[in-house]
Amino acid sequence: MYIPTLDDMLAAHERIKPYIHRTPVLTSSFLDDLTGAKLFFKCENFQKAGAFKVRGASNAVFGLADDKLARGVATHSSGNHALSLSYAAGRRGIPCTVVMPRTAPQAKKDAVIGYGGRIVECEPSTSSREATFAEVVGESGAEFVHPYNDPRVIAGQGTCSRELIEQVEGLDAVVAPIGGGGMISGTCLTLSNLAPEVKIYAAEPTRADDAYRSFKAGYIIADDAPDTVADGLKVPLKELTWHFVSRHVSDIFTASDPEIVDAMKLIWKRMKIVIEPSSALPLAVILKNPQTFAGKRVGIIITGGNVDLDSLP
Amino acid sequence: MYIPTLDDMLAAHERIKPYIHRTPVLTSSFLDDLTGAKLFFKCENFQKAGAFKVRGASNAVFGLADDKLARGVATHSSGNHALSLSYAAGRRGIPCTVVMPRTAPQAKKDAVIGYGGRIVECEPSTSSREATFAEVVGESGAEFVHPYNDPRVIAGQGTCSRELIEQVEGLDAVVAPIGGGGMISGTCLTLSNLAPEVKIYAAEPTRADDAYRSFKAGYIIADDAPDTVADGLKVPLKELTWHFVSRHVSDIFTASDPEIVDAMKLIWKRMKIVIEPSSALPLAVILKNPQTFAGKRVGIIITGGNVDLDSLP
Repeated sequence: MYIPTLDDMLAAHERIKPYIHRTPVLTSSFLDDLTGAKLFFKCENFQKAGAFKVRGASNAVFGLADDKLARGVATHSSGNHALSLSYAAGRRGIPCTVVMPRTAPQAKKDAVIGYGGRIVECEPSTSSREATFAEVVGESGAEFVHPYNDPRVIAGQGTCSRELIEQVEGLDAVVAPIGGGGMISGTCLTLSNLAPEVKIYAAEPTRADDAYRSFKAGYIIADDAPDTVADGLKVPLKELTWHFVSRHVSDIFTASDPEIVDAMKLIWKRMKIVIEPSSALPLAVILKNPQTFAGKRVGIIITGGNVDLDSLP
Repeated sequence: MYIPTLDDMLAAHERIKPYIHRTPVLTSSFLDDLTGAKLFFKCENFQKAGAFKVRGASNAVFGLADDKLARGVATHSSGNHALSLSYAAGRRGIPCTVVMPRTAPQAKKDAVIGYGGRIVECEPSTSSREATFAEVVGESGAEFVHPYNDPRVIAGQGTCSRELIEQVEGLDAVVAPIGGGGMISGTCLTLSNLAPEVKIYAAEPTRADDAYRSFKAGYIIADDAPDTVADGLKVPLKELTWHFVSRHVSDIFTASDPEIVDAMKLIWKRMKIVIEPSSALPLAVILKNPQTFAGKRVGIIITGGNVDLDSLP
């Protein structure tokens, strides 16, 4: 297992800069008053392809050796990683195949195809996905880019908090959502090296709290089929993300689905930005744990804005 | 009738700067590709109180002479002007009374009260509103701040396009929604003096196209009860706004309610910002009139983001 380093993150940032936005940091005096903290929202919902995932995906795609280009890249994802890998592959002009359950939202399928990706459908089960994916890679010889358990991806996600600490001085803490742990791991990689005084907190849906339970137990616990409105956060930790989470995260907090939806509406209404439910987790847990955050300068990673406007929670 | 001047706008800007945001200008490569133009969105949805109206309201409130402060300000509005005047009066610590139809959305009433304003309800008819308003002003002696037919308000709204031309060089045109004409008049005031080469276009709902018909006829036509999803744009032109519209606007384009909703969804989805239906008018008319805008650098005023999330069109 190769653990990505600070140099990997810095190299990733140079590599992906032409293909990503340096997203803005927004503030809200209303939400500051409500939480008693000073909040800085790093808006990856304004990112290319609508989510931070394009950082890691672009690093993997643009770091690919020349002899691997013709066979392209492949992944399995029904979410933002699928869009992001398709976007990055399209920018480099190489093939991208995404294995997606046939039940995935049509909007996500359309977006993958819009970026030039190819979709291979599987049944909505782990066994079907694994079999289908093995077949795809066997046929094409494509390079597998895992959504989060990949050092290239984690190094790419780490560029987000590097920008954040350049944009905001004197942060006391950063809060990011946790699913598989890619964003949190990138945050740990960057902050533990460049700003070790900044505490790192993860925020997880109560209905998919495997990372919370893993953190408390001291080993990875993976759930079978968690179900939450924050659908980007259902996946479990893997060995590489566990490495970072277990070493550098100060605590993991959870929030219920109604709390997540309330926090999402608050951000839509007061900040006038479109965010997906997963992105509301940090505000939801800050509202629940004022004793930890009051009086502090807190960075919040708004992870993405890809939400289906026709079926809002 | 006093016509506000460039000096009035410049003085307004100095006066209101401490109380408003210099809002950002966003771009979208997707919408540029779609329209064939280069679009610059001036995001007043991020403005204090959620809309550009706070510029004019703040100019009126903070320009008020000392001997008028105790009696405060009053207006009639069920929309963003009500919120904005309450916000500005609250910041100056003076009373603000708003006459609102009892049928106005509870969210708007709550927002006015949240900013410290007082609401006097009337029946949803012009006669009831006028009678109630006369009573309020008779009792309190409050200073009337009209939502748009007021030189102080127009000078305040003109600060928006002043920022826009500072933020974006070489604009060929600016497109703004038109209802009563306050924003468009402020835009005319500023651009006709500081950037007369920039063409000014207004965008209006087909179902409330009184400004369009006035513009073509050469005199003010006011409709009785227009009905459109762009509810901020139902009001008619008045003599002061007609002065600017008839002299400085190059053309007025209209869009149907379905076209407005489509354009609104496109902005939500692609730019990840929450805008109200009125703010979608410029994009809707640009999409309908590509011959006018293709190849041009076009400023778009996103007027506000106060939309009821529980009843989205």
